[in-house]
Amino acid sequence: MLKVKAWTVVFFLAIAACGIFFLQSYVVSAQTVDTIADIPMPKVEKPLLILTPAIEIFNIASCSTKDIGFSIASAKIPPGGGPMPHVHYFINEWFWTPEGGIELYSSVRQFPNIKEAPTQDAAGKTKLHIINMKPQQVVYSPKHHVHGFTNSTTKTLPITFVWLKDKVAPDFPFHDGGMREYFTDSGVRIADLNNLPKVTDASRAAFVNLAPKYGINQSAYFLQYVSTITDKVPDELAKLKNDQDLGKVIKVIKAFNQGDKSVSCS
Amino acid sequence: MLKVKAWTVVFFLAIAACGIFFLQSYVVSAQTVDTIADIPMPKVEKPLLILTPAIEIFNIASCSTKDIGFSIASAKIPPGGGPMPHVHYFINEWFWTPEGGIELYSSVRQFPNIKEAPTQDAAGKTKLHIINMKPQQVVYSPKHHVHGFTNSTTKTLPITFVWLKDKVAPDFPFHDGGMREYFTDSGVRIADLNNLPKVTDASRAAFVNLAPKYGINQSAYFLQYVSTITDKVPDELAKLKNDQDLGKVIKVIKAFNQGDKSVSCS
Repeated sequence: MLKVKAWTVVFFLAIAACGIFFLQSYVVSAQTVDTIADIPMPKVEKPLLILTPAIEIFNIASCSTKDIGFSIASAKIPPGGGPMPHVHYFINEWFWTPEGGIELYSSVRQFPNIKEAPTQDAAGKTKLHIINMKPQQVVYSPKHHVHGFTNSTTKTLPITFVWLKDKVAPDFPFHDGGMREYFTDSGVRIADLNNLPKVTDASRAAFVNLAPKYGINQSAYFLQYVSTITDKVPDELAKLKNDQDLGKVIKVIKAFNQGDKSVSCS
Repeated sequence: MLKVKAWTVVFFLAIAACGIFFLQSYVVSAQTVDTIADIPMPKVEKPLLILTPAIEIFNIASCSTKDIGFSIASAKIPPGGGPMPHVHYFINEWFWTPEGGIELYSSVRQFPNIKEAPTQDAAGKTKLHIINMKPQQVVYSPKHHVHGFTNSTTKTLPITFVWLKDKVAPDFPFHDGGMREYFTDSGVRIADLNNLPKVTDASRAAFVNLAPKYGINQSAYFLQYVSTITDKVPDELAKLKNDQDLGKVIKVIKAFNQGDKSVSCS
């Protein structure tokens, strides 16, 4: 009897060990969602309104000081809006979703070479992880990961993007790593928010074809860079944070809004 | 010593049992890929050439007898071409890829009600399974599953579609379940294969908006119907076959091509 009991114990210990081993691949750490109450827009004289080829309604501005350069867009995403998967090489990005509802996705795998896009015939396609954004959630997404998002709901949702110039970026007119210049070059100017222009074929083509000039590989169709998609978010992604630089960005915007002449925003 | 040995045996038996249990979810049966050497096109007087809004170059025809009605398209898919995920309600479909290379995807889950689309706000989004098509592979995809495909390679690839009228379909002019009528209504006629027309915004909108009239729910953006994507193909999908009806279709086409007046093709 004792012997049988010992066997039983060993049997269940083995099952438990094995279970832990197999379940590890599914473990999503009890993530505390990072939230932030507000990311203010710089109060510039003439706000620049752009409809991007990815059906995003942007109010976009750029700021720079002697130490830092970035662009920021306070955006509205209509149902179905959002860019196809893409990779940045010149900037690091934050996504902030005041109301949540946006489906953000990102690869763990990095693609450090702009000449080796994540396509079947170049660096190979990648797995994506979907993050269902919560209200006020902020996600940091540094260069070299494939990422993008979509609004799969039936109502227009707000999202704010911050694109911080990376040290490897060449100098662009707004000293921001090129994102404002990219959207100006590929998007359509909005004259009246109540009467949106149409996204043109030329605009859609420019969004993909001009991307490398601005340090981006932009896919032209959804599965071009994508092999599989999961709703599990692994630790490698969940732990990506850069609160320090986001803090600097917000400080610079607040300084500008309070009249600090060492900050230039437009 | 004996006792320890027994423990060891039990331990490894437990690990093995547990391993089998967990691995079951990954098991893809040793699938024999179904292939077919040829699906002939009916030799009609004036072939109908259409560029679909999903960037597919179609040579499409319809045949009917007193017993059966179907449409068939011998198509070329340029890089990036292929429809967004969609669901059929009036037809059952076969895909045949003479050279392989196409990524076909399908849901296991069925959406039997055309008024309950697989969207977040209606029936809910679905998991998709990717099938990397082999040369000459044929896949049967009956109504009610979400499916679609893409060409992620850098060369144009051939694919043949057969759409067989389901018994629930209303009568359309070509007695085919409505697919020829749908592509005629939403696509752009090709006058010269060496000088393809452009897909227009109106054509893209019609592809989505007219779909229900032809027994289809057609998504407007990739993630509209899709929650996750895996490259595992479960048995429920792999076992879907309908060789008998495909045999009938081929027999009808061959009869027409040999002058059988009981078959009408155009």
